Amino acid sequence: MYTATVDTQERLIESTRELLWERGYVATSPKAIQQRAGAGQGSMYHHFAGKRELALAAIRRTAEQLRAAADAELSAPGTAAQRITGYLRRDREVQKGCPIGRLTQDPDVMADPLLREPVEQTFAWLRTRLAEVLAAGRDAGEFDPGLDPRATAAVVVAVLQGGYVVARAADRDDPFDQAVTGVLALLTRPTT
Amino acid sequence: MYTATVDTQERLIESTRELLWERGYVATSPKAIQQRAGAGQGSMYHHFAGKRELALAAIRRTAEQLRAAADAELSAPGTAAQRITGYLRRDREVQKGCPIGRLTQDPDVMADPLLREPVEQTFAWLRTRLAEVLAAGRDAGEFDPGLDPRATAAVVVAVLQGGYVVARAADRDDPFDQAVTGVLALLTRPTT
Repeated sequence: MYTATVDTQERLIESTRELLWERGYVATSPKAIQQRAGAGQGSMYHHFAGKRELALAAIRRTAEQLRAAADAELSAPGTAAQRITGYLRRDREVQKGCPIGRLTQDPDVMADPLLREPVEQTFAWLRTRLAEVLAAGRDAGEFDPGLDPRATAAVVVAVLQGGYVVARAADRDDPFDQAVTGVLALLTRPTT
Repeated sequence: MYTATVDTQERLIESTRELLWERGYVATSPKAIQQRAGAGQGSMYHHFAGKRELALAAIRRTAEQLRAAADAELSAPGTAAQRITGYLRRDREVQKGCPIGRLTQDPDVMADPLLREPVEQTFAWLRTRLAEVLAAGRDAGEFDPGLDPRATAAVVVAVLQGGYVVARAADRDDPFDQAVTGVLALLTRPTT
């Protein structure tokens, strides 16, 4: 019984995560979540007060996983340039885009401070972590001594998020790959 | 009578443009368009076969305006660096994001070749135009001689689109401004 309950709760959260990624918050109905999770309406409302609470659990889990995956690359052995390259070039489902970034296009998520918080925190953490790696690389002489770690971290995050946008528009991955190649070339080209 | 008809058609297109920008395609109902345009259902279906045809007219017009605004900056007098700076720094409603880029998060727009076409074409044109300006700047000695115009153009487009995403997540403009400052610094820093 305990296992069945945990399973249902799990399936509800995982189904919500998938639907938020595929269709966004506004276009995801409680009914669609129940159908995908194979759970009844009563079961859903037993575990969660509503779509909003379920979405919050789903967004928080997605944010945690994204952060762990990014940190695995950014804290890996190697130079700063190698770690940033590893992060930018890791396997991604480019056409699906970023499950956190896509939420910024959901007006109802952005208008709700509780739902927006994990989205904002994820990007804030990522910019800070990238700035640390960039500063370490600059201090080690890998990058231009005039490099601004905060502004450059903002560039790296924006290139990923915008790369997804342009790749989806083109229905192929190469605008994303080109942007990644381009930013690494700008970052690591020989300095004076 | 002619004027009234043109006015209604115009109001329908402009209302659709606004709603697509604010809420996206999936979340925009024919009824919401009619209400904003102050037009009846009969009037809407007199002018357009349905929501899809109206959205197509709206997306095409938005794409044309975006292209004209970008070209005004990129074809202005000045060096390549000045023109790209002018383009990146022009007045933007950062929190509203890009009316073309946001459509990439609409699964129903991306799945429809007719609706996706103006989105894809806008970014393809923009990458090509930016690559021309970057190549001219490189040839004039403004940028690193090893600069890859295509890849760097992909970076510039991605920084704008991703800058909007991160700024919306943060509910303030400065992640966008930082990304723009960062990419201009990478592009124009002194070369060997």
